[in-house]
Amino acid sequence: MKVFIVHAHPEPRSFGQALLQRAVQTLRETGHQVVVSDLYAMGFQPVATGDDFSERRFPDALQYDREQKQASQRQTFRADIQAELDKLMACDLLILQFPLWWFSVPAIMKGWIDRVFANGTVYGAGGKRFDQGGLKGRKAMLAFTTGCFPEMMAPDGLLGQRDVILWHLQHGTFGYSGLQVLQPFVGWSIQYTDPGQRGAYLDAYAARLRGIEHEAAMPSHPLSDFGPDWRLKPGIAPRTAGHRRPGDGA
Amino acid sequence: MKVFIVHAHPEPRSFGQALLQRAVQTLRETGHQVVVSDLYAMGFQPVATGDDFSERRFPDALQYDREQKQASQRQTFRADIQAELDKLMACDLLILQFPLWWFSVPAIMKGWIDRVFANGTVYGAGGKRFDQGGLKGRKAMLAFTTGCFPEMMAPDGLLGQRDVILWHLQHGTFGYSGLQVLQPFVGWSIQYTDPGQRGAYLDAYAARLRGIEHEAAMPSHPLSDFGPDWRLKPGIAPRTAGHRRPGDGA
Repeated sequence: MKVFIVHAHPEPRSFGQALLQRAVQTLRETGHQVVVSDLYAMGFQPVATGDDFSERRFPDALQYDREQKQASQRQTFRADIQAELDKLMACDLLILQFPLWWFSVPAIMKGWIDRVFANGTVYGAGGKRFDQGGLKGRKAMLAFTTGCFPEMMAPDGLLGQRDVILWHLQHGTFGYSGLQVLQPFVGWSIQYTDPGQRGAYLDAYAARLRGIEHEAAMPSHPLSDFGPDWRLKPGIAPRTAGHRRPGDGA
Repeated sequence: MKVFIVHAHPEPRSFGQALLQRAVQTLRETGHQVVVSDLYAMGFQPVATGDDFSERRFPDALQYDREQKQASQRQTFRADIQAELDKLMACDLLILQFPLWWFSVPAIMKGWIDRVFANGTVYGAGGKRFDQGGLKGRKAMLAFTTGCFPEMMAPDGLLGQRDVILWHLQHGTFGYSGLQVLQPFVGWSIQYTDPGQRGAYLDAYAARLRGIEHEAAMPSHPLSDFGPDWRLKPGIAPRTAGHRRPGDGA
């Protein structure tokens, strides 16, 4: 497989960097090709602006997604975006690796998503989304560290259930784009761990990655499960944490 | 009330800017004080780095949240962060206004959260979180525009239920910090609306804001609903989209 790891951590001596290096080493030993975008090291610019396009279809007022659509057709993205798009389209497995900040990715990685997951390529262009998305046939996973303990992300945990917290990323970003989503890898409460526990996390991540190509994706609904009103058709039971039926509670 | 509006849109001639201006005008007419941070106009820097602190407790390797804690005690945040913190702590109502990008806020606003919602001030410092959070006594709401139609965010909609999509912001960011969360204001499928529909959205937003101080907050759990294992105590029924009990389904 071609594996594309996008990494966001401000500190090169962090445990996150150790996880990244272990992943690269393990995947290469297993015979996979690995490409890394280390966003802090690259000085990646995360703010979407009109300068992201070398020509503008609507120069008077920026409509970012419509300019993305034209840039997808004419390959007029700024070079830093096109380079990331090329890596993304070439991969079989995308891994986003980061410390969980405010229940999501750090801003530098959100900007990578905003700018690289482009209309006309990753979605759109005649209804490409979910199982018909521009990234279909590929897989993706989140690999992140937390300050919290696993019980806090239990279904009845203080922070809410894990897959609800991650919904905007796993369903909204990965799923919408056509990526099949693997279970996340989580390094829990990293700042409260000792070197032995950190070593155990590194080993667990390596063991997981050694068989990653055989893992099944998490449940999701194909577009055909939804009616013309974009709601689940009668008789289709919700399969995910984010889809409910009346009477299912809050 | 003192209302603090944080706004993120790359285009000064956007409908988002029209919503912002209408909000400022309406709130002032109603007698509220309004402060605005227009992040694109300010050139706000969203990437958290070690330069965010004028002195470092751990200069060898950056632990961002621990440096935030010290900076909260010693007021050693970089000036751009301290200015935003001062506005935040002074407000009674926080409004985040933005176009929904990838089921979340644009990167420039995520960076505002990463850098300004600081450990030691907004949370932490002896267990401050949720109803004991550093922003308790204040309210907050999201005001955003979408490319999608409302049915898509129905409980059984294609994109998932609205409050699951927004969980990382409404529960994870607002709730965790002690803010009471008001229902969001949503301008649906803005790029498919005509001037009449846009005018109706502006009027609806203004009407909503005119009575905003009387609105009740959305349901949430106080910390005391959770046991020492950080899970809902026996007998406490989940009140939100993100808390489940075994048997409640996915």
